Amino acid sequence: MKQPFPFSAIVGQEAMKQAMILTAVDPAIGGVLVFGDRGTGKSTAVRALAALLPEIEAIEGCPVNSPRAEMVPDWAQGATGRLVTKPTPVIDLPLGVTEDRVVGALDIERALTRGEKAFEPGLLARANRGYLYIDEVNLLEDHIVDLLLDVAQSGENVVEREGLSIRHPARFVLVGSGNPEEGELRPQLLDRFGLSVEVTSPRDIETRVEVIRRRDAYETNYGAFIETWRPQDAALRDRILAARASLPALHTPNTVLHDCAALCIAIGSDGLRGELTLLRAARALAAFEGDDAVGRIHLKAVAPMSLSHRLRRDPLDEAGSTARVIRAVSEVLP
Amino acid sequence: MKQPFPFSAIVGQEAMKQAMILTAVDPAIGGVLVFGDRGTGKSTAVRALAALLPEIEAIEGCPVNSPRAEMVPDWAQGATGRLVTKPTPVIDLPLGVTEDRVVGALDIERALTRGEKAFEPGLLARANRGYLYIDEVNLLEDHIVDLLLDVAQSGENVVEREGLSIRHPARFVLVGSGNPEEGELRPQLLDRFGLSVEVTSPRDIETRVEVIRRRDAYETNYGAFIETWRPQDAALRDRILAARASLPALHTPNTVLHDCAALCIAIGSDGLRGELTLLRAARALAAFEGDDAVGRIHLKAVAPMSLSHRLRRDPLDEAGSTARVIRAVSEVLP
Amino acid sequence: MKQPFPFSAIVGQEAMKQAMILTAVDPAIGGVLVFGDRGTGKSTAVRALAALLPEIEAIEGCPVNSPRAEMVPDWAQGATGRLVTKPTPVIDLPLGVTEDRVVGALDIERALTRGEKAFEPGLLARANRGYLYIDEVNLLEDHIVDLLLDVAQSGENVVEREGLSIRHPARFVLVGSGNPEEGELRPQLLDRFGLSVEVTSPRDIETRVEVIRRRDAYETNYGAFIETWRPQDAALRDRILAARASLPALHTPNTVLHDCAALCIAIGSDGLRGELTLLRAARALAAFEGDDAVGRIHLKAVAPMSLSHRLRRDPLDEAGSTARVIRAVSEVLP
Amino acid sequence: MKQPFPFSAIVGQEAMKQAMILTAVDPAIGGVLVFGDRGTGKSTAVRALAALLPEIEAIEGCPVNSPRAEMVPDWAQGATGRLVTKPTPVIDLPLGVTEDRVVGALDIERALTRGEKAFEPGLLARANRGYLYIDEVNLLEDHIVDLLLDVAQSGENVVEREGLSIRHPARFVLVGSGNPEEGELRPQLLDRFGLSVEVTSPRDIETRVEVIRRRDAYETNYGAFIETWRPQDAALRDRILAARASLPALHTPNTVLHDCAALCIAIGSDGLRGELTLLRAARALAAFEGDDAVGRIHLKAVAPMSLSHRLRRDPLDEAGSTARVIRAVSEVLP
Amino acid sequence: MKQPFPFSAIVGQEAMKQAMILTAVDPAIGGVLVFGDRGTGKSTAVRALAALLPEIEAIEGCPVNSPRAEMVPDWAQGATGRLVTKPTPVIDLPLGVTEDRVVGALDIERALTRGEKAFEPGLLARANRGYLYIDEVNLLEDHIVDLLLDVAQSGENVVEREGLSIRHPARFVLVGSGNPEEGELRPQLLDRFGLSVEVTSPRDIETRVEVIRRRDAYETNYGAFIETWRPQDAALRDRILAARASLPALHTPNTVLHDCAALCIAIGSDGLRGELTLLRAARALAAFEGDDAVGRIHLKAVAPMSLSHRLRRDPLDEAGSTARVIRAVSEVLP
Amino acid sequence: MKQPFPFSAIVGQEAMKQAMILTAVDPAIGGVLVFGDRGTGKSTAVRALAALLPEIEAIEGCPVNSPRAEMVPDWAQGATGRLVTKPTPVIDLPLGVTEDRVVGALDIERALTRGEKAFEPGLLARANRGYLYIDEVNLLEDHIVDLLLDVAQSGENVVEREGLSIRHPARFVLVGSGNPEEGELRPQLLDRFGLSVEVTSPRDIETRVEVIRRRDAYETNYGAFIETWRPQDAALRDRILAARASLPALHTPNTVLHDCAALCIAIGSDGLRGELTLLRAARALAAFEGDDAVGRIHLKAVAPMSLSHRLRRDPLDEAGSTARVIRAVSEVLP
Repeated sequence: MKQPFPFSAIVGQEAMKQAMILTAVDPAIGGVLVFGDRGTGKSTAVRALAALLPEIEAIEGCPVNSPRAEMVPDWAQGATGRLVTKPTPVIDLPLGVTEDRVVGALDIERALTRGEKAFEPGLLARANRGYLYIDEVNLLEDHIVDLLLDVAQSGENVVEREGLSIRHPARFVLVGSGNPEEGELRPQLLDRFGLSVEVTSPRDIETRVEVIRRRDAYETNYGAFIETWRPQDAALRDRILAARASLPALHTPNTVLHDCAALCIAIGSDGLRGELTLLRAARALAAFEGDDAVGRIHLKAVAPMSLSHRLRRDPLDEAGSTARVIRAVSEVLP
Repeated sequence: MKQPFPFSAIVGQEAMKQAMILTAVDPAIGGVLVFGDRGTGKSTAVRALAALLPEIEAIEGCPVNSPRAEMVPDWAQGATGRLVTKPTPVIDLPLGVTEDRVVGALDIERALTRGEKAFEPGLLARANRGYLYIDEVNLLEDHIVDLLLDVAQSGENVVEREGLSIRHPARFVLVGSGNPEEGELRPQLLDRFGLSVEVTSPRDIETRVEVIRRRDAYETNYGAFIETWRPQDAALRDRILAARASLPALHTPNTVLHDCAALCIAIGSDGLRGELTLLRAARALAAFEGDDAVGRIHLKAVAPMSLSHRLRRDPLDEAGSTARVIRAVSEVLP
Repeated sequence: MKQPFPFSAIVGQEAMKQAMILTAVDPAIGGVLVFGDRGTGKSTAVRALAALLPEIEAIEGCPVNSPRAEMVPDWAQGATGRLVTKPTPVIDLPLGVTEDRVVGALDIERALTRGEKAFEPGLLARANRGYLYIDEVNLLEDHIVDLLLDVAQSGENVVEREGLSIRHPARFVLVGSGNPEEGELRPQLLDRFGLSVEVTSPRDIETRVEVIRRRDAYETNYGAFIETWRPQDAALRDRILAARASLPALHTPNTVLHDCAALCIAIGSDGLRGELTLLRAARALAAFEGDDAVGRIHLKAVAPMSLSHRLRRDPLDEAGSTARVIRAVSEVLP
Repeated sequence: MKQPFPFSAIVGQEAMKQAMILTAVDPAIGGVLVFGDRGTGKSTAVRALAALLPEIEAIEGCPVNSPRAEMVPDWAQGATGRLVTKPTPVIDLPLGVTEDRVVGALDIERALTRGEKAFEPGLLARANRGYLYIDEVNLLEDHIVDLLLDVAQSGENVVEREGLSIRHPARFVLVGSGNPEEGELRPQLLDRFGLSVEVTSPRDIETRVEVIRRRDAYETNYGAFIETWRPQDAALRDRILAARASLPALHTPNTVLHDCAALCIAIGSDGLRGELTLLRAARALAAFEGDDAVGRIHLKAVAPMSLSHRLRRDPLDEAGSTARVIRAVSEVLP
Repeated sequence: MKQPFPFSAIVGQEAMKQAMILTAVDPAIGGVLVFGDRGTGKSTAVRALAALLPEIEAIEGCPVNSPRAEMVPDWAQGATGRLVTKPTPVIDLPLGVTEDRVVGALDIERALTRGEKAFEPGLLARANRGYLYIDEVNLLEDHIVDLLLDVAQSGENVVEREGLSIRHPARFVLVGSGNPEEGELRPQLLDRFGLSVEVTSPRDIETRVEVIRRRDAYETNYGAFIETWRPQDAALRDRILAARASLPALHTPNTVLHDCAALCIAIGSDGLRGELTLLRAARALAAFEGDDAVGRIHLKAVAPMSLSHRLRRDPLDEAGSTARVIRAVSEVLP
Repeated sequence: MKQPFPFSAIVGQEAMKQAMILTAVDPAIGGVLVFGDRGTGKSTAVRALAALLPEIEAIEGCPVNSPRAEMVPDWAQGATGRLVTKPTPVIDLPLGVTEDRVVGALDIERALTRGEKAFEPGLLARANRGYLYIDEVNLLEDHIVDLLLDVAQSGENVVEREGLSIRHPARFVLVGSGNPEEGELRPQLLDRFGLSVEVTSPRDIETRVEVIRRRDAYETNYGAFIETWRPQDAALRDRILAARASLPALHTPNTVLHDCAALCIAIGSDGLRGELTLLRAARALAAFEGDDAVGRIHLKAVAPMSLSHRLRRDPLDEAGSTARVIRAVSEVLP
């Protein structure tokens, strides 16, 4: 299996790359939704993210990647109790996935051969402490989307089916790619994603040529291309780890909380998820940039990706949602 | 697993908190329906309720939490007969729950291994004497909602399926959260909830800042935050227990019955569930406030949450339903 | 399990109570359909009926409550042959009931353990010689309703499924509650119910206060309340038994047959089920009232409940169907 | 089980009774469809037919009632080879019947216990040489109706399912009752029934009183009522047997064939099933009336029931279909 | 089982009879679709065809009627290797047929008893080298029709289901009857049938009388009737065999190819299936008529049945499709 | 089984033939979609392609045709480790294929007989390193199409079902035929095909006669016809192999990348798949033509088939999409 296209080699698409980096610094920001027309490299970028993420420590063989032996679920099979290092899980939700594989189900093999009612964990278990990626959210069945968002929100997978009654941690960053042409997403669904970014085809020839050149190199000269970009991905990964370490000690001035609230009131975002996401994303950015306090400058930078999918639709305002957020920022946070 | 956000630490949302406390004083009031836009903390509040509820006494291992050994169903497995203390059950109805897990079903494991037709109780059994919580009632399948309301009404779960013919007590308070944007609920469904409250995002900056601050503290400084609020939750729990104890002896003047009937006739609520709920909620409030008789003051306080979801729609009256109830209260009970 | 609310303690709702009593005197009248808005006590009344009904004699362990040993079906398991006394069966059709539990099905347990193809009777078998109650007919699936009406009509359950070919008696009174707000019932369905009555919320304060008072007493002071009303229910039951005994000897003058036909022609009821129901209901009323012949006075009393659901809709006549029947009665039977 | 209401005791409804008698004389006429509003005694009449039919000779235990031992299918179980006399089969198609019970299916019991793939015949096998009765054709699922008509037409049941490949004779008269209010039947379906008749409620008081009187006697004085009418049913049965015997020798003048063709061309009935049915029904009538040749008088008598369901709809002709047939008869066959 | 009505005894319907004969001479012409109102004898004619077809030579017990031992599929059970003579298979596709019986499926019996994954061939296997008949194509489920046409086109049945991966020859002539009143057939479906003919009821009395007379004789005097027509069917069969033998040596002048192309361009038939069918049908006709070269006269005769179902719809041309083909023929091939 | 019609013997249809050859030179170009009316030889052409493709080297018995022993999946059964030569796989996706056969599924036989949970690979595994052909993409179920495109894009089949969690390489060229009359394809679907070509019926008589002549020869004189065309197919195959060998060393001037970008910006194709496909197709053409650098001439030749299915619909531009591409080419690349 080839490694994915290197994250650092992606030409342009700065907002998308920043959003992904921020969730790597603080997964509590919530998921990322990447919007865009077909062929703009959405899938490529999300798959590239996997190569960038730092490793985690987990109990060997634990189906939910528990960081400590006492957290291994009692229904788990084959956990050794030894702490090992492993890549951050990036779980792919394939089209045609069945609900039993998402949430887990009765282990038919053991039921048939040993007459036991054992739980066989699903993708939600494997995604714990990592990322869950859905290509083309629009094509996934509604009941699976509802289920994923519910679990993403609560951090816990509650299974009540086939005589099983199981719950296990399922904390993951949900990353989805969507195509607005295939129909709008429900506001409830949008609100559950922490950040949203839009990607478009570049319009100038030089950028497009550079995209083709790198893509072509990746495919026709795979080994050398990967080697070229490895150091840059490694440097980025180190910076993410440093940001994670500095995050708890980061100072949050009271004025920043007021700025968050004022901005959300100004743009009329429903509910309070906007403020919390804004605050967390700004803190993650401050940590990533090496600052020791979060400030207005960080808020301004992350406001569009934190808030533009939480605006009420305003039929009289013809500006796009990102433009409306930027306008509000310049008025409220001069 | 983290404890839920403390009930006492919820900023504002007084009506919702009061409604939940009243059902804790007298579960016969019926369920609570919490309306509101996305992100207004509905789920947080309902989950917070679990930490507040007093414990119950039940036979150890009894699947329906029977308070006395002779009430343990004959199909129950593993009940010890010993009386133990346990938390009030708060059962979560996860999305994607199957009907067999709600009502109970044939125990496949015993059927396969021992050839016996045994009943495996479902969530309705576990919820007996406690709470059943449905996040986003709108997303639950209709046939499951009908079934839940039917059982909530009769207090009994009647199972006729797969060759089983079982009935067991299933008295619980149904708590649901709903989002009016995702479609109106049927009047029949509304009527089956005892109380309804609406939650909205606060509009002033200071309140919003306080919400973010507490939420942020809960997530970034979990242990200390829980410790801070524990005494306040405990005090509230004690007050609920005292109210329960005083409820049977509470005096109900005849005039209060007349007030109930007059108010319901004035607002034209269908049927008689309005009066009964109003009376019980007022009594629970009187007990909670330490009064020894229920009076007009209590009726006035609980009328909006008891009646606003039972009004007939009046296309000529543009006032909201809560405003219409308050107006009727001020006219009928001056 | 608590006993249901006593039948005699129901405030008002005279038509509904009378209709139920008449079917207890003569089950051949057919079912009763109770119409009304939510919260008007429909379910309470129907459940109250169970406590009122006299006992039957049946072969112990016979799944269809056969009155004589030679009538026990050959597929029955565990019938002792001994004649015992048992309550009139009142079978509840729970929401979510599956067709196999209604009509009966292959006994999976015996099929799996003994390789035999045995019949496991369903609710229709248990309801034989008793009542079958459907709360909210509107919510039941169409194919189950059609099936129930077909069996209610023929008095026999014919099972052709899963390789089984069984028939057994299934004579029962079908009692349904319905809410016209949830959609009209099909005329074919209406016609299969013998009687129909409408219940509404009382409009005067004193009645409503009395309803709340009794309901409240039933719930907060259960034991004493039941004791208070027991003698009245017992007296009613004795009167029903006396009426049953006198029914065969009751005289039916020829003029009464003519009155029935004339009335049905006048109101244009489709088919001949109207006349037969009218005649039987009038006879049951005469017997219940202790008269030794049925007369015009009895016909007049039962005409509305026997005929109002059998009128053709007349868009030019704005009167309700009950009013139209009363008007026709006063013209045809002066 | 009570015997059905006696055929001879049905008041009026002459066309329906005649149609049923003709199919008893010559089953090749095809089925009978009885139209009418609810409550007009359609089901009663069809069930009454069963008591009227003469017995057949068949091999004991043969699942398709074969008249000779060499015609018993090779998949049949338990046929003795002995010729016995048994009632003409009248098979009821209950609502909710599953396709496997109609056409037959894999015998699960033998498959499970002996590992054999045996055929378990369905209702179509049992109906061979008899009647198949569908109450409320409108309520039967479309795919079952198509299947029945296909078999009724070909006289053979071809089973290709679950690895079975079986064919057996299934010649039966299809009798259906339908209610035009519940939706029109497809022309293709109508054409497959040989005869159609309409039943309505009588409009004069004396007839209605007589109907009530007899129906009431059947229910309240069952034994005596059956005894009263037995001789009349027996006489009718003897006359049917005599007609069957004389049918082969009945003379069919050439002019009658011309009359059939002329009449069908005049009314524009599609296809040639009209002529064939008309001819056969007229011959059966001639035989039943004891005549030794079929003539124009017989054609005239059976034309309405043979042709009225085969007319093309003519939006400009407001006369009912029966009236149009009668008018054509009087013009073509003066 | 009675033999079908003799092909030679069908009155009129010359186009239909010719189309069927041509496919018997050269099965590569493709299927025949017979259109017509109900009751016009479509089914009768198709079933009559079976009695007409010459026998084939095939390996005894081979499920696909292989003509040589080395062509017996490796999954076949019980083929003896001996060459035997058997009737041309005419396979009936019954309504309600399941996909597994059409294409073949896992042999459940062997799977259960021997744990082997064996293929049980379906109707497509049995139809190889013969005819597959669908009565009322309109009533067959779409996915089965698509599947049949796909196989009819490729001559091969590819099975990929239940873990099986099988392919076997399935060359057959598809014969369907359809009723335009039950909805139009899709153009794609029409195009896959080689020939199409329309049948209508005869309009003159003498013909109709003859139809009734023969039909009546077949039913009331079966043995003699069959005997009467046997020689004529035998003569026709011999002529078909002679035509088959002479077909390979038949001369096809170049001008005939040009005529085919010119005609198809003139009428604007889509694609090239029209030309190929036209050519083959003309050749089959020439062979059947004993000519040694195909000519313009043969093209003219078969053009309507080869092309009329391949015209583009032309809303401005009110002539029927057959009339349009005839007009084009007279212009292009004077 | 007959060999398919020889690729070289196809009359005309140059664009389609060229597109197929280019994907044989460089499979990374992606799939080919062949549009056209019924009967224009789409299926014939695609099936002809199979006979043209060079052989591959693969490990004997490896279910995914692995080129090296270490790449054989660990779930594979029966791979010998020996390298053999075999035809390029061309896998047919039959109508009615089930999802389990496409993606692979639990091996039921081994599960039942040995109690093991083994993976049985599906058609996607077999198609690895070859072609997957879908006749009539329009008739395939949507969820299967989505699944195929997803796998075609990622080159990997991810299976999460029935307790299995498997991934294996699935790199194939998807070839589909579609009929625009049966409904438009979704833009997302179009974009996933590398090239698209349209086929139509020839309009001049001579070409049509030649088509009929060759088709007729293939069917009536099969052996000789195949022999005639074998050398031409072999020469074409050799040329493809030569092109493959020269492709890595082919020079790609920078100006060509600019031309690609400029052309795609000019026609406004969404995303960047257009440029990449254009570049690859042009390179494959250059290699096939024996040139040692790709140039503007090659871009111009392949632009229509690479881009015409990627245009945004422009309701004001009445030119067809191919014409619009050609116009843009002449403006941008003079």
